[in-house]
Amino acid sequence: MTEIKVPASLDEIRDLLRNLPGPDLNSAHEVAGRENQLTKPMGSLGRLEEMTQWLARWQGVNKPTLNHPRTAVFAGNHGVCAQGVSAFPSEVTAQMVANFRNGGACVNQLVGQIDGDLNVYELDLDNPTNDMSQGPAMDDQRVSEAISFGMMAVEPGIDIIALGEMGIGNTTAAAAVCLSLFGGDAADWTGPGTGVEGDSLGNKVRIVAESVRINQDSMTDGLETLRCVGGLELAAICGAILAARLAKVPVVLDGFICTAAAACLYSMDKSLLDHCIVAHKSAEPGHAKLCAAINQKPLLDLGMRLGEGSAATLSINILRSALACHTGMATFEEAMVAGKSFE
Amino acid sequence: MTEIKVPASLDEIRDLLRNLPGPDLNSAHEVAGRENQLTKPMGSLGRLEEMTQWLARWQGVNKPTLNHPRTAVFAGNHGVCAQGVSAFPSEVTAQMVANFRNGGACVNQLVGQIDGDLNVYELDLDNPTNDMSQGPAMDDQRVSEAISFGMMAVEPGIDIIALGEMGIGNTTAAAAVCLSLFGGDAADWTGPGTGVEGDSLGNKVRIVAESVRINQDSMTDGLETLRCVGGLELAAICGAILAARLAKVPVVLDGFICTAAAACLYSMDKSLLDHCIVAHKSAEPGHAKLCAAINQKPLLDLGMRLGEGSAATLSINILRSALACHTGMATFEEAMVAGKSFE
Repeated sequence: MTEIKVPASLDEIRDLLRNLPGPDLNSAHEVAGRENQLTKPMGSLGRLEEMTQWLARWQGVNKPTLNHPRTAVFAGNHGVCAQGVSAFPSEVTAQMVANFRNGGACVNQLVGQIDGDLNVYELDLDNPTNDMSQGPAMDDQRVSEAISFGMMAVEPGIDIIALGEMGIGNTTAAAAVCLSLFGGDAADWTGPGTGVEGDSLGNKVRIVAESVRINQDSMTDGLETLRCVGGLELAAICGAILAARLAKVPVVLDGFICTAAAACLYSMDKSLLDHCIVAHKSAEPGHAKLCAAINQKPLLDLGMRLGEGSAATLSINILRSALACHTGMATFEEAMVAGKSFE
Repeated sequence: MTEIKVPASLDEIRDLLRNLPGPDLNSAHEVAGRENQLTKPMGSLGRLEEMTQWLARWQGVNKPTLNHPRTAVFAGNHGVCAQGVSAFPSEVTAQMVANFRNGGACVNQLVGQIDGDLNVYELDLDNPTNDMSQGPAMDDQRVSEAISFGMMAVEPGIDIIALGEMGIGNTTAAAAVCLSLFGGDAADWTGPGTGVEGDSLGNKVRIVAESVRINQDSMTDGLETLRCVGGLELAAICGAILAARLAKVPVVLDGFICTAAAACLYSMDKSLLDHCIVAHKSAEPGHAKLCAAINQKPLLDLGMRLGEGSAATLSINILRSALACHTGMATFEEAMVAGKSFE
């Protein structure tokens, strides 16, 4: 694994962004060459074929592997919860972390299905970010530390990383991130989250708009947006994305919050998410628009809106199946099937 | 398993259709009750929750299982290939069956991923159906035998069955089935299949239209449509669907051809496919319209268009994950998470 200098400020993160490795086009080309010899009409596996090439491009090998998937869930608390933006109290963040550790959450079951590992990273749960509707959620040092902390999730030996989050109030933060990065109305980006509706949803929309308004002058790039209206777990997700790029580990993003975090990087440089896919189109209404804004087409669309890395972990079943087809299928020549290569 | 009288004619099939078991609503209700106690916002797993209830409804138990999935692939040949409707020669059907038996096809790899079993059923490959553009593809006895043969695919001990097919020329048959059942233009239902384009696609459209025109007076119900413009493997798929209903085995349909076969049953009685889901929206252009016509929303949309049970088998990963969440997650009470049940 590449040695990584842990960045201590957003300026050091900005330096890092300018020096990230690109794709391995040779490996992807070799994978595409084999794909076209397999016993099926060309292109008939659709996105499964795309996914195998994507794995080759970013693992940097012509025989990608998915033996060791990791799911990393980052948990943080949000000062903006004081404004009544969530249907659940902030205590639920720590309670759900305990549930992850006890094996009782959704993501535990999904990790079990793929025989992966689940790492849960708590980001100072007793100390929420500042209330972003009153000013910046974090200062430069705190957001940089959270990014660096997130980089730890990428360790030697993992083939792919699924990123997820838990944080009461974080759909509010994600909506503010989107509004800041892509404009539009606060209502375009603000949804029910865990179940906010009616007047409470109206309040949430107002808080999102106010948070962006009050921080407007400070949000001069994507990283400043992350600092002012993001959150600790969103920052950690960005760190994991960057570390994964350095370590040649493809990344699967989960839903609305995870994608919003990643969008902070995309807004710095559109190529920064090329090693990432979005697993699933969330039922959270802003997600489809967000995915379009960062040029991502989610792999699945199952009406999920849970977060905690659930859809990202689920989608690894699809990636693994794609790879199994590519690796295990016979070529036309091996199988003596009349086809393209016999014409 | 229910004893099944093997039907010897389409009239006996018609009798069978009138006496099929319905859903187990009590089990589905119990599953829904547990679902709402699990540590997640209500409904936040979207279609995963629907799928678990569907399994309960049709397995007829409040603790569904997916330990033993079967993929059944039916292979048949089509006299209409004489009209140049496919990019591949008819010999490829048998060659692909050999590839299935040797473990080299896509479906083998996907079955391996779910640790399922794969059964391949050849339907008299040396004797294709009659050329449907000249008259009925089959007589009553031949189609009835094929339906009965397909019923054998459902055996004691299997928890779910994924249905697939292999048959050069069978997108032409499927298009004719759709045109007969649902009307419109032949071009609405006719696509490239394994890769037909340009003038050859125009020819395929004309053959589909002619096949329906010449058999019009005989196609008095869905089973007669299956007989006149279907095929041996499409008939066998219908048989497997019926046997699965009798045996309380939920069914996953694959793509365009599989869904077209099932549509013959739907046209007899809209409830006949309630124990079936469509796995995937095929890239074959008629499939989306076909799914809408039979009120099915495919689970996946990955641009696949291979058939051979590939997408149906792939989707079992999703069903199993859905079930694992339902079965393994903690309730709010067990996890001591503040939420709905604590209010």
